[in-house]
Amino acid sequence: MVVRGAPAIAIAAALSLAVEVANFKDFNGTSEEAASFIELKLEYLVSSPPTAVNLSDAAKKLIEITSNAASTTIMPESVFQAYIEAAEIMLDDDVASNKAIGSYGPRFLQDQRKIVPRFSVLTHCNTGSLATAGYGTALGVICALHAEGVLERAYCTETRPFNQGSRLTAFELVHYKIPATLIADSAAAALMKESRLSAVIVGADRVAANGDTANKIRTYSLALCAMHHHIPFYVAASLSSIDLSLSSGEEIVIEERSAKELLHSRGGLGEQVAASGILVWNPAFDVTPAYLITGIITEKGVITKNNDAFNIKDFVEKAAGKSTA
Amino acid sequence: MVVRGAPAIAIAAALSLAVEVANFKDFNGTSEEAASFIELKLEYLVSSPPTAVNLSDAAKKLIEITSNAASTTIMPESVFQAYIEAAEIMLDDDVASNKAIGSYGPRFLQDQRKIVPRFSVLTHCNTGSLATAGYGTALGVICALHAEGVLERAYCTETRPFNQGSRLTAFELVHYKIPATLIADSAAAALMKESRLSAVIVGADRVAANGDTANKIRTYSLALCAMHHHIPFYVAASLSSIDLSLSSGEEIVIEERSAKELLHSRGGLGEQVAASGILVWNPAFDVTPAYLITGIITEKGVITKNNDAFNIKDFVEKAAGKSTA
Repeated sequence: MVVRGAPAIAIAAALSLAVEVANFKDFNGTSEEAASFIELKLEYLVSSPPTAVNLSDAAKKLIEITSNAASTTIMPESVFQAYIEAAEIMLDDDVASNKAIGSYGPRFLQDQRKIVPRFSVLTHCNTGSLATAGYGTALGVICALHAEGVLERAYCTETRPFNQGSRLTAFELVHYKIPATLIADSAAAALMKESRLSAVIVGADRVAANGDTANKIRTYSLALCAMHHHIPFYVAASLSSIDLSLSSGEEIVIEERSAKELLHSRGGLGEQVAASGILVWNPAFDVTPAYLITGIITEKGVITKNNDAFNIKDFVEKAAGKSTA
Repeated sequence: MVVRGAPAIAIAAALSLAVEVANFKDFNGTSEEAASFIELKLEYLVSSPPTAVNLSDAAKKLIEITSNAASTTIMPESVFQAYIEAAEIMLDDDVASNKAIGSYGPRFLQDQRKIVPRFSVLTHCNTGSLATAGYGTALGVICALHAEGVLERAYCTETRPFNQGSRLTAFELVHYKIPATLIADSAAAALMKESRLSAVIVGADRVAANGDTANKIRTYSLALCAMHHHIPFYVAASLSSIDLSLSSGEEIVIEERSAKELLHSRGGLGEQVAASGILVWNPAFDVTPAYLITGIITEKGVITKNNDAFNIKDFVEKAAGKSTA
C-alpha cells in the first residue's frame, strides 16, 4: 500500500525494474537470458494485487518487447535498453492518456449542460496525480472541469478504511485551489438528496467486457444511490483498465485486506479504536454493475450505451484502429 | 457527545436533575417556585440536541408532574420528591420498553422465517445498552434473536465519523458473545450483494407521523441498498421517539457536527489525518423515507404498512388505549 492506484502500481513496477536493469554492470548471460530475467521479474510483480488489470497488461507488453529484442541481438545490454525505453514510453503514454481522459470528460458533460451551467461533482477514493503516473483519471476530469470554469464544487469522500479521499484527494483539491468539500462516505446519499450533485465520477481498478467495474469499496452503493437520485454516474478509466477477457464483473476476484485497517485508526497505522475481539470483513473493492453506470470516460472518448448496454469490445477495437490509422 | 444515543440522553438529563434536587438541603422558596426551578432546568436541557425527540417529550411529562405536585402541596421538598420518583419511573419504563422491543422484534421476524432458519442482521451506529438506559433498541432485537438461537451472525458498521459501531456496538456484541463481524460503512452494499443478510435493523433519533425516520448518517443509503437487494429494513424505536407533530421527515432539522470529526482520527479526538485546508460537510443524521422502511419495531408491537403507508397515529393511540385499559 506504499504505491497505490491501479495505474500507478503498473507504472511504478515497470519503472522500478527499469532502474534495476539500468544499474546492471555485469550481466553474465545471453540476450535470451536477459529477456528471461525480465520476464521472471515481471511475472513475480504481476502476482499481486489481484484486482488491477493494468499491471498484467503492461507486463505482457513489456515481455513481448524484450523477447523481440532478444531475438534480434546477442547483446544482453541491448535487451535491457529496449526494456528501459519501453517502460519510459509506457509512462509517457499514461500521462498522455490521463490528459485525454480529462479532455473528453468535460466535453461530454457539457453536452448535458442545458439544465445546469456549472457542475458539482462527487468523487471517491483517489484517482489524481498521486494514483496515476500523470494527470489523473476521475480527478483529471474534475481538474479539467475546473480549468474550463464550469465546476461549481468538487466533493470527495473520506474513503474508509484507508482514507485515500481525506488524505490524498483532499490534498490535491486544495493544492489545485479547486472549491472542494470533504464528506464521510456515509454522507453521500444525504448530499444527493439535497440535490447538490450534478454527477458522480469515479476511477476503476478493472472494467469487464460488459462494463461492470471493480473499484474501491463503496463505489457500488454510490452508484445505487446515484441511480435512485437520477444523478449520472461516470467511470473515468484508461483503456488499459479494461479487461475484455472478463465477460462480467462476476469474474473479478475481490481483494480482502487486513482487519487492522478497521481496528486501528488511520487505516491501521494508528492506535486501536475498535473493540477487542471483534471479527472484521474488509473487502478492498466492490463491483458496480454496468446498468448503474452512465458512461465510461476513456482517453479515446466516452463509451456510452446502446439499448442499455455498453459495447466495449467494439469501442476498444475501433480505438485501436484509430490509433494505428 | 459524552452521553449519546437519543434515549440515553433523555434519561441521563432527567436523572442528573433528580440527583441535583435530591441533594437540595435548603431550598428557599414555595412549592410553586420548586416546580418553576425544575421547569427552567428542563427547558434548558431541551434546547439541545436538535434531532432527538425523547428529551423534549420527557421534559414535558416531568414538568406536568411537578406542576401538579406543586398545586397539591406547599412543601417544596414534596415537589422535588415527586420529580425524583417520576424520573426513576421514566428509567424503569425505558428499560421495560427496551425489553419489549427486544421481545417483539424476533417474534415478528420469525413469522417470515419460512425461507431462512437463522438470521444474519446488519445494524448501524450504537443502539445497545450503552445508548439507551437499559436493554437497547435495534441491538436489543439482535440480542433477543441470539437468545432464541435464531441468529446466524450480526454485522455492525464502523459508523463514521465517530465510530460508535466499532467502539460501542462491537464491544457489546463481543461482550454478549454474539457471533459478530465489523465492516466499514462502505462495505454494506457489497455484503448485501453477497446475500449474506436477512435484515437490516437500525435505531431512530426521531420518527415522523408518516414513518420517515431520522437516524445516524448513512442510514438512508443503507435503506436504499437494502430495498435494491430485497432485504427487509426495520427501525427499532420506543414510542417516545415518535413525534406526531412532524407530518414528514422534511420537517426534521438535521444537526451538523464539527469538521474535526473527519479531519482528525478517532472522530476528532486523535491526530490530524485529512489534508489541511479542505472544507467539510458533516451532517450527524439523515432521514430515511418511510417507503424504504419495512416495519417499525416498538415496545407495543411492530408497526407495519397498510396500502404502502404506516398509520402511526392510529397505532400510537391504540397503544395508549391498551396501556390505560
